[in-house]
Amino acid sequence: MSPAPKDMSKFFNPESVAIVGVPRTDYRFGGLSYLNRFQDSGFPGRLYPINPKADEINGLKAYPSLTALPEAPDLAIVCVAARIVPAILEECGRLGLRHIHILSSGFGEVGTPEGRALEDRLAEVAREHDLLVIGPNCMGPYSPSARLTAWGAIPGMPGPLGIISQSGGITQRLTEYAWRLGLGVDKAVSFGNGAVLSASDFLEYMAEDDRIRAICMYLESVPDGPAFLRLAARVNRDKPIILFKGGLSEAGASTAASHTGGLAGRVGLWSAFFAQTGVTQVTSMDEWLDAALAFCFLPPPAGKGVFVVGGGGGNSVAYADTFVREGLAVPRLSEKTMAWLKETVPAAGNIAGNPLDMWQTFMDPAYLIETLERGYQDPAVGMIVVDRLIPRMAFHMPDLPDPNPAVVEHLKKNGRPKPTAFMVDSEGGDPELAAAGASLRALYGGAGVPAFPSAARAARAMGHLYRYYARFGRNRTE
Amino acid sequence: MSPAPKDMSKFFNPESVAIVGVPRTDYRFGGLSYLNRFQDSGFPGRLYPINPKADEINGLKAYPSLTALPEAPDLAIVCVAARIVPAILEECGRLGLRHIHILSSGFGEVGTPEGRALEDRLAEVAREHDLLVIGPNCMGPYSPSARLTAWGAIPGMPGPLGIISQSGGITQRLTEYAWRLGLGVDKAVSFGNGAVLSASDFLEYMAEDDRIRAICMYLESVPDGPAFLRLAARVNRDKPIILFKGGLSEAGASTAASHTGGLAGRVGLWSAFFAQTGVTQVTSMDEWLDAALAFCFLPPPAGKGVFVVGGGGGNSVAYADTFVREGLAVPRLSEKTMAWLKETVPAAGNIAGNPLDMWQTFMDPAYLIETLERGYQDPAVGMIVVDRLIPRMAFHMPDLPDPNPAVVEHLKKNGRPKPTAFMVDSEGGDPELAAAGASLRALYGGAGVPAFPSAARAARAMGHLYRYYARFGRNRTE
Repeated sequence: MSPAPKDMSKFFNPESVAIVGVPRTDYRFGGLSYLNRFQDSGFPGRLYPINPKADEINGLKAYPSLTALPEAPDLAIVCVAARIVPAILEECGRLGLRHIHILSSGFGEVGTPEGRALEDRLAEVAREHDLLVIGPNCMGPYSPSARLTAWGAIPGMPGPLGIISQSGGITQRLTEYAWRLGLGVDKAVSFGNGAVLSASDFLEYMAEDDRIRAICMYLESVPDGPAFLRLAARVNRDKPIILFKGGLSEAGASTAASHTGGLAGRVGLWSAFFAQTGVTQVTSMDEWLDAALAFCFLPPPAGKGVFVVGGGGGNSVAYADTFVREGLAVPRLSEKTMAWLKETVPAAGNIAGNPLDMWQTFMDPAYLIETLERGYQDPAVGMIVVDRLIPRMAFHMPDLPDPNPAVVEHLKKNGRPKPTAFMVDSEGGDPELAAAGASLRALYGGAGVPAFPSAARAARAMGHLYRYYARFGRNRTE
Repeated sequence: MSPAPKDMSKFFNPESVAIVGVPRTDYRFGGLSYLNRFQDSGFPGRLYPINPKADEINGLKAYPSLTALPEAPDLAIVCVAARIVPAILEECGRLGLRHIHILSSGFGEVGTPEGRALEDRLAEVAREHDLLVIGPNCMGPYSPSARLTAWGAIPGMPGPLGIISQSGGITQRLTEYAWRLGLGVDKAVSFGNGAVLSASDFLEYMAEDDRIRAICMYLESVPDGPAFLRLAARVNRDKPIILFKGGLSEAGASTAASHTGGLAGRVGLWSAFFAQTGVTQVTSMDEWLDAALAFCFLPPPAGKGVFVVGGGGGNSVAYADTFVREGLAVPRLSEKTMAWLKETVPAAGNIAGNPLDMWQTFMDPAYLIETLERGYQDPAVGMIVVDRLIPRMAFHMPDLPDPNPAVVEHLKKNGRPKPTAFMVDSEGGDPELAAAGASLRALYGGAGVPAFPSAARAARAMGHLYRYYARFGRNRTE
């Protein structure tokens, strides 16, 4: 895609950062909020706020311009009005400052001739000076291990996920969802209009990064479709890409034009893209998160057969339908497993089979653990999904000790030779139940075990996992 | 379907209830738990516990048999072992006690010749004595206005929903979800194996009940498919039926056989059923709930165009795609609405259009209310869906007063001439956020406004609503 190799590492591990356009007060999203977050997160590098009218901001010496700095910093974050941005880039070029993130909006996405001209000019200056530019109109790079987490107020947690996105808001949400469910981020980038660096550049970079196990992408447009397809196909073979493509409908595409200024492309082309590359397609935030949890936390399935440790007769019927609908199987268990179930499952009000409807799995951790272990040994079982009932008012459940900590301890200690996930239903408008459900999902997530809020979402995620490995095999570098 | 009209009303409004098989202690699900719940809920009728070895249970006089009672009660709930049930039915026949709910399991669903023979015998006795029997193997009738809520511990809340279900567990969950989101139940019935009374009998009954506005059904099998199809088609024209069909996969059907003993039928037949009748098909608990909220709370849409009051640029793009994918449209707004938006929406970081991406809608109730009112007047708008952001840590939101109470007040006072729903995202493992999300959904639900937890779920529910009225028009009796 590019003539010279693009050294992206300074974006994600800068030792010095200039923030161009930091108001002294007037807090809102922009230069000052970025500076605050850098300081809050304990960023260990040198920080240079730039403001021609200030001597000091937040206890740091302020400089009138990039030119006035004692060094050319590794990264400049540009937050000034759009019309000034080209001049700032010229200045960067003169100073040999090559890594720039443009937070400012007001370019191609506003749809005016002026906006488009400014964006063209920006790209031209970048070409002239060989600048690496993220943006404009975006949140920029994010790297918890470098304490580069200026996006939002969540504590940055390092982990195996990479994110490449044209939406800051969507990426913030995913980052927060994932963090709360035990899944950290190695590197993320919100790159907005992508006037200079495109999705392909970031994908090439993250493909080579061994700490990143799966890559979530949110894209509205790509500048060179065929090249992106070839690259995505190559990367996805070794490292799963989960792509949330925005703008597939006409209404969505026209909104995308106002959001990041790009042409979202035709649905037919994108269908072909997914079919040819095998990249995992998701169409909602929830599905994106669920697939990320599955790909980052779970080993390859040992087959398409799901052992569903269910909850209640009707749910077991519906769960079986749900997993089958997602292209998986809910097979008969082996003779050996069935013999054990027939011995231990009472006939009345339970169902010894797959799905297994057995109340003891909810209340007795030892029984659930034995069920899991027998599932791991059963050749019919490719993966296991367990319904983890929270005592609802509607149920007549005895008041017993919480079985979950013992189950989590076992899973942590003994490992999971086959993909193992949980379902935690806390649907409805009950705040206490909702809080209990979130805590339980976080408890499992903290142990590296995905816990989905419904069977439908669990099945969708496990379906993605199964299809990926069925196509590409177990060739992931681990 | 039946020779004589079946008077079902005593099932749901009994003045006297006998519970056959109430242990004195040994609390578990069954006779004693039902008796407890009847007493807890303040059931105003006469309660007769039957136990040949007790004189008194829970402060009530106990009787050795139905025959020993001072009257033939309106309803008998039978909780004894399966093999004794036919004799109890004979006794009911002799006493002229015609309404019976059999909670006991151990019939056709266990799959043994003995089980099937017992169920055949039970049906035979019912025919001989012209008994109306709910069950066996089920939770039975539920009617909050009659304080007949023995299923679970949730307070019964009367409302416009009817439920006809072959799964007690699934129905309990739905009932609790709906209650917590402001949607009460007029009558529900869990009828298990349906050996005597079938789904059709309950459907005929609820069709005539003016207090029931929409009917949720969970079915595994129907004894007479063509007759059920004709009935469902007729009822659904005037009163929406939302059918969650269990056992559409082979694995699900085989589980259904162990659950309620029925033959779940072939997928092809059920696809034809949904196409011919126009009955709304759902395939998950969440979708069932969401459709129930939409059909019970919302008026007919004024068209397929959704005005999406969105949140963030990327989300707006994704939301547009999401609603279009569900068969709806996200149209250009009228000149008049656009003129107002262009006047009030700042260009940078917002999008004046549909979806509308405007931060003020999150924080300023007056602005959101005006947005809604302008949507109601816009001929391009058939319904409105509003993203209701909860301040997440990831966002940089100022600390402002909660705008929701003012919005809810306005909606309650001024009505909603077009279907209006909210989206409340509290996804992730943060207990506080989850609790806030549940509370907010409950706040809107309490005002008769559906609040869905994601755009995907909102779009699915609004799609169901739109398709129903597009096919059957505004002929609902209101």
